[in-house]
This record gives sequence, structure tokens and C-alpha cells, in this order.
Amino acid sequence: MNLTPKAIAQEIGAEKLVGNGDIILTGFASLAEAGPQDLSFFSDSRYENLLYATRAGAVILSKDFTPKKPLPSHVAWIYVGRPEQAFYSLVQRYKVPPLPGWGREPYAVIHPTAVVPSATYIGAFAYIAQNVRLAERVWIYPFAYIGADVEIGEGTIVYPHAVIMAGTKIGRNCIIHPGAVVGADGFGFYKGESRPYERIPQIGHVVIEDDVEVGANTCIDRATLGQTRLEQGVKLDNLIQVGHNVRIGPHTAIAAQSGIAGSSTIGAFCRIGGQVGIADHLYVADRSSITAQAGVSKSISTPGKGWRGAPAQEVRQQLLMEAVMRKLTELYPKILELLNEKKA
Amino acid sequence: MNLTPKAIAQEIGAEKLVGNGDIILTGFASLAEAGPQDLSFFSDSRYENLLYATRAGAVILSKDFTPKKPLPSHVAWIYVGRPEQAFYSLVQRYKVPPLPGWGREPYAVIHPTAVVPSATYIGAFAYIAQNVRLAERVWIYPFAYIGADVEIGEGTIVYPHAVIMAGTKIGRNCIIHPGAVVGADGFGFYKGESRPYERIPQIGHVVIEDDVEVGANTCIDRATLGQTRLEQGVKLDNLIQVGHNVRIGPHTAIAAQSGIAGSSTIGAFCRIGGQVGIADHLYVADRSSITAQAGVSKSISTPGKGWRGAPAQEVRQQLLMEAVMRKLTELYPKILELLNEKKA
Amino acid sequence: MNLTPKAIAQEIGAEKLVGNGDIILTGFASLAEAGPQDLSFFSDSRYENLLYATRAGAVILSKDFTPKKPLPSHVAWIYVGRPEQAFYSLVQRYKVPPLPGWGREPYAVIHPTAVVPSATYIGAFAYIAQNVRLAERVWIYPFAYIGADVEIGEGTIVYPHAVIMAGTKIGRNCIIHPGAVVGADGFGFYKGESRPYERIPQIGHVVIEDDVEVGANTCIDRATLGQTRLEQGVKLDNLIQVGHNVRIGPHTAIAAQSGIAGSSTIGAFCRIGGQVGIADHLYVADRSSITAQAGVSKSISTPGKGWRGAPAQEVRQQLLMEAVMRKLTELYPKILELLNEKKA
Repeated sequence: MNLTPKAIAQEIGAEKLVGNGDIILTGFASLAEAGPQDLSFFSDSRYENLLYATRAGAVILSKDFTPKKPLPSHVAWIYVGRPEQAFYSLVQRYKVPPLPGWGREPYAVIHPTAVVPSATYIGAFAYIAQNVRLAERVWIYPFAYIGADVEIGEGTIVYPHAVIMAGTKIGRNCIIHPGAVVGADGFGFYKGESRPYERIPQIGHVVIEDDVEVGANTCIDRATLGQTRLEQGVKLDNLIQVGHNVRIGPHTAIAAQSGIAGSSTIGAFCRIGGQVGIADHLYVADRSSITAQAGVSKSISTPGKGWRGAPAQEVRQQLLMEAVMRKLTELYPKILELLNEKKA
Repeated sequence: MNLTPKAIAQEIGAEKLVGNGDIILTGFASLAEAGPQDLSFFSDSRYENLLYATRAGAVILSKDFTPKKPLPSHVAWIYVGRPEQAFYSLVQRYKVPPLPGWGREPYAVIHPTAVVPSATYIGAFAYIAQNVRLAERVWIYPFAYIGADVEIGEGTIVYPHAVIMAGTKIGRNCIIHPGAVVGADGFGFYKGESRPYERIPQIGHVVIEDDVEVGANTCIDRATLGQTRLEQGVKLDNLIQVGHNVRIGPHTAIAAQSGIAGSSTIGAFCRIGGQVGIADHLYVADRSSITAQAGVSKSISTPGKGWRGAPAQEVRQQLLMEAVMRKLTELYPKILELLNEKKA
Repeated sequence: MNLTPKAIAQEIGAEKLVGNGDIILTGFASLAEAGPQDLSFFSDSRYENLLYATRAGAVILSKDFTPKKPLPSHVAWIYVGRPEQAFYSLVQRYKVPPLPGWGREPYAVIHPTAVVPSATYIGAFAYIAQNVRLAERVWIYPFAYIGADVEIGEGTIVYPHAVIMAGTKIGRNCIIHPGAVVGADGFGFYKGESRPYERIPQIGHVVIEDDVEVGANTCIDRATLGQTRLEQGVKLDNLIQVGHNVRIGPHTAIAAQSGIAGSSTIGAFCRIGGQVGIADHLYVADRSSITAQAGVSKSISTPGKGWRGAPAQEVRQQLLMEAVMRKLTELYPKILELLNEKKA
């Protein structure tokens, strides 16, 4: 980037520019780390104190913001409706390195029956098995394994070392991060006559709809029969486990290291923290919000509530219980005294 | 599959067939998802209501089952001794895609000292180091890394991107799922004179006996000295951590994201839920059953018991404690009143 | 190894040798597993009983150790100042297999702009992108992905299937274990106008200082802006999640499956157990010690303390609370009686 605050204000349709609009900005940085040639932004009121101390050359902020103290005059202040969005759209345009162009790097193995349009990127050591169908504008990075009969939609990126097992369907504009494993066999056994665990053959598939992200080293197991399904806009962080036949509703986001056991259904627009566990064969209603490390052991039928603790209960109830436990710990000597008196 | 209920009944040695035995069945599906050309099965009484509503063409069920309501007449009912087993044996025979045939795909690197029988599958980009010994009927998928001196027994499958580090021994009929890392260095340090952490060299190995499964992205560390050992029939789900010098007894099954710290010994026929943690240098007795998210911080010496909570205690005790905590939360205002009265 | 106790005593500068110094020792083993040709060591007083029963040919132990019972005479006892260090230095010298020598295996893809000194090991199927700069004495194992502009310092090992995304800087003498993913995009979104989650472009980097270990399948996300940083001597076990913009101070060690959410800062010399969760935007003071499975939901400002439980509190307080909970469970019937009496 090589832009002045003036040019930026014009580009993002700013309402107002206060300060020196003619300096040259070359970088993007947070309020705390920005220097005189950096553009920054302010949108989270918890960090208002950083605003008065920033060394940034220019800051994008809300046109509705009223500062508690005078803003420093060495900064160019650019006022817009949605500062975060404006800032990141500039980052996207001027700073994000472009994805690789179309073409095939050496040592890619592509089965002759696979459909691979010329407007795709196929990295070195990519493995594309029989009957794979890639749409246009797909990026397959080095070391990606694309199993037989896989379909991948337009605009989707499969990063290095991702494994997409046979029969998986992936929609448009998805991102599969490095090391993710999509479509490995689910964990299912039945008691055999001679052996305690006979494998249940896993012949179902994984279906991933549009705009989904699957984090690094996250695992999505194929269904036993039928489908494991991530619906539109699902966002999964790293190291998550999604068991066989799980269904996750549209625009649900799950933080790292959480796990969902087999056959559970998660609703739409849920927000699930890190290291959460959800047991098998459960239902979690739409817009549920689940705190990190919670353990959901029963279905959640009322939508829009918050859950916390293990076993999880409603946030208010769990916080009350935690507070009471702390209080009782404090009062324990007195309780003991009371009980002893009674005895005596 | 293209079979009639009659032919299926004969193939699985059914006791009885009720309904139209002459329709053509082409697929396998669960009771909830099956259509008129699908075969389904019923073995879990919790789902009996699905039986009366199923659209399946045919259903395998237990010869000992007595329905609570009349069974729908559009379904062909096939009665056998073990319905789940019968159903999955048909799935295995007619639906599971065959594994790749013997041969070597391009760009496999096989060290000249490695023993690789012709009756093996070596995928593209497989790496097989010096002195590796593969038995016959072994499948090494693309991108598998097989380190020096590794031995792999007959019938074992190593899926894409699995990493088998030097010196590991794997038995017969094992499955190593994608991205699993077997035999990386354990996490061991001692206090050095000049540095707080000096690496302890990890010269032990991992030994995996017959019929073991290692889940996707699961990590089994090599021993410091001696062995880390998974005994016969151990089943590990995805994203599990097994520390150095751990020993897991025969036919123990562990669900996803659990971790076992260094030098602990787990008995035979244990069932361990997801996200369980087991501390280091512990002993867990045979047939222990551990609930998801439990934290085992002391050895378990009595076999056959259930454990729950963190720190884990016997299930009954833990459930009682959880119930009392809920009750005390409710009663807290009254307890406070009582204490205040006494004071007054 | 093919050394006598006498030769060993001389090599490690032993103070004293008691017993037969002329036998030939060929292996290294723990006290419990050692045979007559093995060298072992004793440094942890919890295992003193193993000392009297060992079948080892020779044992290294502390010159300050006073046994409770007579030591068996068939063992050669070698007395030194630091037995563990002496033992492992011998293991390192005589038993650890050498790393591969310098050179390039077939099918490595190295971009012409990459700087790859001849004194490096580049395994088969390594992928080294544009502008990568490797120092001398670097080991890049098969299937490692080294993205654009990555720098790697002298003495560092990148094991098979590790993924180092673009722009990452790695210092000297680091070890990146198999399947680790360093520098994948952080998990960040903002509320869009038309969609609930718009991706925040992640243009920051990961910086790893000297002497750091990153465990197998562990994930370190790149920063949104600025850096995610592992400072000197940080040791991370397997399957750990480190979110974007996290900073971990020097010589902090973290056990397997722990997770640190975005923008948190962990101090120096902390010891963090397995499956610990640390929420986002927190500060954890130097020398904090956090018990396995704890959930840290508030900043820790006082250095040097121990923390336990979820939500985490100081170890003493948490242990007291756990003890009180057990006691109250026991006393519950009596408490109930008391409350009922009062009512009556």
C-alpha cells in the first residue's frame, strides 16, 4: 500500500477526515503496534485508552464515536459507518498476497478420469484420484489428497496436506486448512461373536456446503450410512472432531479442540467455544451459545440460550452454582459447627 | 447390490421372511432415511418408533422381537438371530468399495534395502525408508511416511498422510487412519546446568499389536527407553494423544480427543469416552469405564468400575455429588438464613 | 555401545565405581526393564525399591545417595553428581541414530529463488517455495511444506508432514514435529452486512525463536496483524492449539492437547499441564503452574503461583473447594435434616 489518508477516505466513502490527509501510509497495524506510516482502526470500546496513545499515522473509526478525551492531533482520523469492515477491505485489497495463479506444478498425479479445468491451481505432489470433479477457480495446494469421486465447488481452497477422502462433496468458496482430514471412517463397532469389536463398515459420506471453513488438523468423519453434513457458512477452528452422521446447521461457528460425537445435530447460528464436548445422538437448538470447556450431555431444545459447565446447564444457573460452591467453601467451618451443635 | 428380500433372507440364513420377498433392493440406509429400494435393520429398542414409520423396502430384525404395534405391511421383514451383524455383513459384501489392487503408483520412493512384496499397494508419493519390512497384503496409501526399520504385518492399511517414524512395529490387520503420527519423540526434558530444559533422547519404540485402529491425526509417542505399546484389538478414535511409555491393554477402546500422559498403563477391555485425560504414571484396571471429559488423577486398582468427573471418582459417587451441588445451590438461601440465625 | 562400567565411569567423570567394572554393556534401559548387559540410572527417590531388584549390569546414581538397604552386589554402581544427565549424555552419544547427512533426495521441489545451502538435508517430496531462506545444518524431512518467504535457522529440524506457511520465521535449534501446522490463518470473523461471518484477512506471521519444540499435529496460527510469537526455549507437546496473536514467553512448557485462545500472553518459565484451556485476551504471569484440564478464564497477574480447576483458581483454594464438595455430599442428609427441623 502507498496511500494517503485522503485517498483512503475517498476509497472507503468516509464521512469526515480530521488531521493531515497527505502523509503516505504503507502498512496496516493494530492501535498498540502501529507506527507513523501505518493505518489502524478502532471499533471495540474496551480498547479506547489505546486511541489516545497510538502512534499510528491514521486511524479509521466510527462516525458515531464520541471520545472521552481530546484525540491526538498527529493522527489522521477517518470517520466511517463501519470501521472494522472498511479497514479489512483495505487489507484485503492492498496487503493479502495473491493466491497462486492457474496451472499445474511438477509431480502432481491426476487420474485420467478426473475433471480438472484449466482455470485451477494444482500444486506439486497433489494427488487427484479417479472421477474427481473440480469446478473452475479451485486451488489444490501441494500434498493435498483428493480421493475418488470427490466433488469440489468453485472458489474453494484446499491447503497443503489436507486429506479429502473418497466420495466427499465440498461446495463453493470453502477453505480446507492444512492437515484437515475430511471423510475418514467413523468410529463404529458392534460386538462380534468371536471378537469384542467388529468394525461397522462406513459407507456414508461427508457433505460440506458453501462458505464453510474447516480448521487445521480438524477431523470430519464420514457417515456410517447417509451423510455427515456441514451446512452453509459453518466455521470450524483447528483440531476439532466431528463424528459420523453429525449435522451442523448454517452459520454455526465452533472454536478449537471441541468435539461432537456421532449422530448429534447442531442447529443454525450457534456459537460454541473451545474444548467443548457434545455427546452423541443429541440435538442442540438454533442460536445456542456454549461456553468453552462445557460438556453437553443432554439435548438442548430451547433455542437462543447460553450453556456452561460440565454437565452443561444454563449459564445463569451454572454461574449461580459456581458462586454458591465458592461461598459454601468459605462457610464450611460454620456449617460443620452447626451440625456438631445439633448432634451435641 | 441388486437383491430381493428372498435372496437376502437365504444369504444371511434368516429364520423367517414376512411380506413381499420379490422386490429389488439396491441400497442400504438407516430406518429414518431408507426409501422403498433400501434395506435397513433394527436392533436398538430406543428407535422402535422408527420401525412403524419407515419407508424401507425391507428391514432385518431380531427373530426374538415382539412389536408393540402391528408392523407396516409394505415392508419385507427379515428375521434373524443377529440383525446388526447380518446387515453389516451385507454392506461389507455389496457396498464397501474395494481397496486398491496390488502395484506401485508413480513417484513412490522405496529404499533399495526395504522389503516390499509384490502383493502390496504402494500409493503415489509413498516414502519407504531403509530396512522397512512390509508383509504381503499391506496397503500404503499416498503420502504415507514409513521410517527406517519399520515392520508392518499382513492385512494392515496405512492411510494417506500417516507418519510411521523409525523403528515402529505394527501387527496384522491394523488400520492407521489419515494424518496419524506414530513414533514421534516423547515430551521429555531434564533440568540442565545452563538451560531449564535439556531434551531427553527418545530411543524407545512404538509397538502396535494385531487388529488395532489408530484414528485420524492421533499421536502415539515413542518410548524414552523400552516401548509404548498398543495391545491386540485396541481401538483409538481421532485426535488422541498417547504419551511415551504408555501401555494400553487388549480390546480397550478410546473415543476422540482423549489423552494419556507418559508411562501410564491402561488395562484390557476398558471403555474410555471422549476428551478424557489420564495423568502420568498411573494404572487403570481392566474393564474400567470412563465417562467423557473425566480427569483421572489417581490409579484405579479395582477392575470393572465406572468413573466420572474431574478429578474422577466412581460414577455413583460423582453423580451423587453433582446432584447434591445442584440441591445445595437451591437450598443456599435457607442455609445462609440458618447460619445467620445462629449468629444472632 | 560396547563399553565397560570402568570406561563409562571414566567418560562421565564418576566419583566412584563399586562392583565389577569389566563386564561389557551393550544397551540402555530403565531399572525395571534392564538386563545384565544394560546400563541404567537412578535419580527419582520414588523408585528406590526398583534399585534393590534391578537386573541391570550397571547403574549410574548420585554420589550423595544413601541406600536404605544394602545394594545388590551383581550390579556395578557408578556414582556421579548428576546421574540423569550423565546417563542421557551416554544415550545421546552411543544410541541415538544419526540424523540424515547433507544432500537432496529425489522429487524435492525447490523454487529457484529459495536459498538452500549445500550443508542441508532435503528429503524426498519436500516443497520449498519462493524466497525461502534456510541456514546451514537444517533438516527438511520428506513431505515438509515450506511456504514462501519462510526463514529457518541453523540446526533446526522440520520433521515429515510439517506445514510451515508463508512468512513464518523459525530460529536456531528448533524441532518441528510431524504434522505440525505453523502459520495457518487465525480464526477471525466480523459481522458482515449480508453474511453473519466475514473473514478477517490474516496478514500477520508466526515467529519462533531459538530452541523451541512444536509437537506433532500441534497448530500455531498466524497473527491477524503483527505476530504470533513463541519465545526462546518454549516447548510444546502434541495436538496443542495456539491462537492468533498469542505470545508465549521464554522456557514455558505446555503439555499435550492444551489450547490458548487468540491474543493471550503467557509469561516465561510457566508449566502448563495437558488439556488446559486459556481464554482469549488474557495475561498469565511468569512462572505460573497450571494443572491439567484447568480452564483459565481471567488474567493471572501474580507470578509463581499454581492454578487448578475450571474456572481456575489457586491450587490451595481449588483443592479446599474440592474437599468441601466431597464433605458436603457426605453431610447432605444431615444438612437437609437441619433445614427441615427449622422449618417444622
